[in-house]
Amino acid sequence: MNVSVPPFDEVSASLARDRQQRLTKPRGSLGVLEEIPVQLAGLQRTPVPASRPAAAIVFASDHPVARHGVSAYPVEVTAAMVRNFVAGGAAASVLARQLRVPLHVLDVGVQGPPYLSFEEDIRLARAPVAQDVAGDLRVEDAMTEATFAGAVLAGAGAVDALPADVRVLLLGEMGIGNTTAASAVAAMLLRAFGPQADALVGAGTGVAGAALERKRAVVRDALARVGNVRSPEEAVRRLGGRDIAALLGAAARACERGMAILVDGFIVSTAILALAQAAPATRRCFVFAHRSGEPGHSRVLEALDARPLLDLGMRLGEASGALLALPLLDQACALHARMATFESAGVPGARGP
Amino acid sequence: MNVSVPPFDEVSASLARDRQQRLTKPRGSLGVLEEIPVQLAGLQRTPVPASRPAAAIVFASDHPVARHGVSAYPVEVTAAMVRNFVAGGAAASVLARQLRVPLHVLDVGVQGPPYLSFEEDIRLARAPVAQDVAGDLRVEDAMTEATFAGAVLAGAGAVDALPADVRVLLLGEMGIGNTTAASAVAAMLLRAFGPQADALVGAGTGVAGAALERKRAVVRDALARVGNVRSPEEAVRRLGGRDIAALLGAAARACERGMAILVDGFIVSTAILALAQAAPATRRCFVFAHRSGEPGHSRVLEALDARPLLDLGMRLGEASGALLALPLLDQACALHARMATFESAGVPGARGP
Repeated sequence: MNVSVPPFDEVSASLARDRQQRLTKPRGSLGVLEEIPVQLAGLQRTPVPASRPAAAIVFASDHPVARHGVSAYPVEVTAAMVRNFVAGGAAASVLARQLRVPLHVLDVGVQGPPYLSFEEDIRLARAPVAQDVAGDLRVEDAMTEATFAGAVLAGAGAVDALPADVRVLLLGEMGIGNTTAASAVAAMLLRAFGPQADALVGAGTGVAGAALERKRAVVRDALARVGNVRSPEEAVRRLGGRDIAALLGAAARACERGMAILVDGFIVSTAILALAQAAPATRRCFVFAHRSGEPGHSRVLEALDARPLLDLGMRLGEASGALLALPLLDQACALHARMATFESAGVPGARGP
Repeated sequence: MNVSVPPFDEVSASLARDRQQRLTKPRGSLGVLEEIPVQLAGLQRTPVPASRPAAAIVFASDHPVARHGVSAYPVEVTAAMVRNFVAGGAAASVLARQLRVPLHVLDVGVQGPPYLSFEEDIRLARAPVAQDVAGDLRVEDAMTEATFAGAVLAGAGAVDALPADVRVLLLGEMGIGNTTAASAVAAMLLRAFGPQADALVGAGTGVAGAALERKRAVVRDALARVGNVRSPEEAVRRLGGRDIAALLGAAARACERGMAILVDGFIVSTAILALAQAAPATRRCFVFAHRSGEPGHSRVLEALDARPLLDLGMRLGEASGALLALPLLDQACALHARMATFESAGVPGARGP
């Protein structure tokens, strides 16, 4: 995957770091919140960066692998939740409104009738990605080359459709069966096979006991079928799903446009890991929002050397973790921009040792 | 300490818990954010509670113990920072504005001239607490009985001065030397003496090496001087400071008024531990905002059986951690109130096992 990431502006980052030292607080006392403006400064090429405008895109697709009973919910829930997003009743809808973040829902392959109702601040579109029910990753590749390319392109196109001034992109997904797909992709990217692969597979929407064992068996079968891959993209194409491929395309395009990506949970992080493996220069564009309760997520975060902002035991997806973390970016930027310096406030500085 | 906490409304809490099960998300998938509305429901006696109106009070006082060089900053910083609060340049000022939380700064004993400037949304007052420089906790009690009573009363009075509809109270402090005082109080409350007391004492504003050793020696001397106490209040009076006593009084009064207290870092948590030991029924009123980088904080949180919302390596005080966590309460309440139910959205529910 050829991703052309603009160079990080070390001068602006360094000026932002200096500024943090002069604000009226003990050095380092804002912890992680001192690092966020430095990273955003380098990406935005300004010593005083901003967290807004932000935008959220949620990609939705069916997963034929769901037919194996790997989820606590029937497959119809994906389409029903897409309608719930645009009707304003899903977690992501409520959070996006609360935080004044435009929410875009892109259907990249959900069976069902066209959507009827939508609200003005939550926009829904259906991308021209294959709607067929082929691609049960247990027995065949999740996507053909053409479907994979279409989904990646749909993701990139969703980012290109955003206003040019968007600085922070929140990515999310909805798709019954997609923790199974993400587990298979993550296992392949991490070369975690056998018991290590089993350990990556978690409750997802809430499976346990026999259903969890089925889910693990599906992932084992899929990994055995594929054997090995020559690229991270191939792992996504053969073991993932259209939502994960769209996330990959969207994240790559956002990096090219100099946006920061506020990374949600397990499924988004798996797409991000694929991107980081394919194009390591993208790593500097990621801010990790939260550590989900899904066991595979911690493994993926570890591989990305990521320390997420939140750890609240969530496992919902839909960009909900990213949305919850956005205020921390807002506040880190507000502190960076608006706090007084020791000099401006006439506050005595630290004494020598 | 006699604190009359209104009974927790188990019916409203139970209705809130039921509601969480019916919202369009897998059960438990919002993690800790599912627990917050249940706690607030019981406190507010309604199944659909709110996080607003919220209000923040920061208590400021000098600490004569600062003369021993236990802080990275000179004592004059306390008065300078009080001016910085009201001028809008402190971290707490920026965050309070960003989050639209009224910020009240109460001087409970800061040497210096009267304050001149203030802004309308940040209110400053000076409470009638002793302004003298007695109370170096290394060699004498931090407060006389009268000063302690005055500070507790000032704290309670600050809460009583808030509008009657405030539901969430954020407490903070400012006072060069107050991590030394809080370390001594926490050590006494936890009966952590000798090396255990040393381990509670941390960098505070950023001391290390010889200064940190001085700080530990001061705490050891203070604990040896006092020996033992008959009540948590006595620990605060003899080893704490006017800011910590005011926090104790404010927190007690907030519990009596049925507010939730969003607990900030080490110093506030130490006052909260004293309150919880004196009046265990107050425990249900606390929401713990964050785990600070100060080593004593984790010990105090453990004693309170608290799992804070954030862990960002902060160690600033000023209610900054509480302010940063407030959006999580806002969002937890928004999700609770506004998400669709499976029934209302026509989303199929979870399958049986």
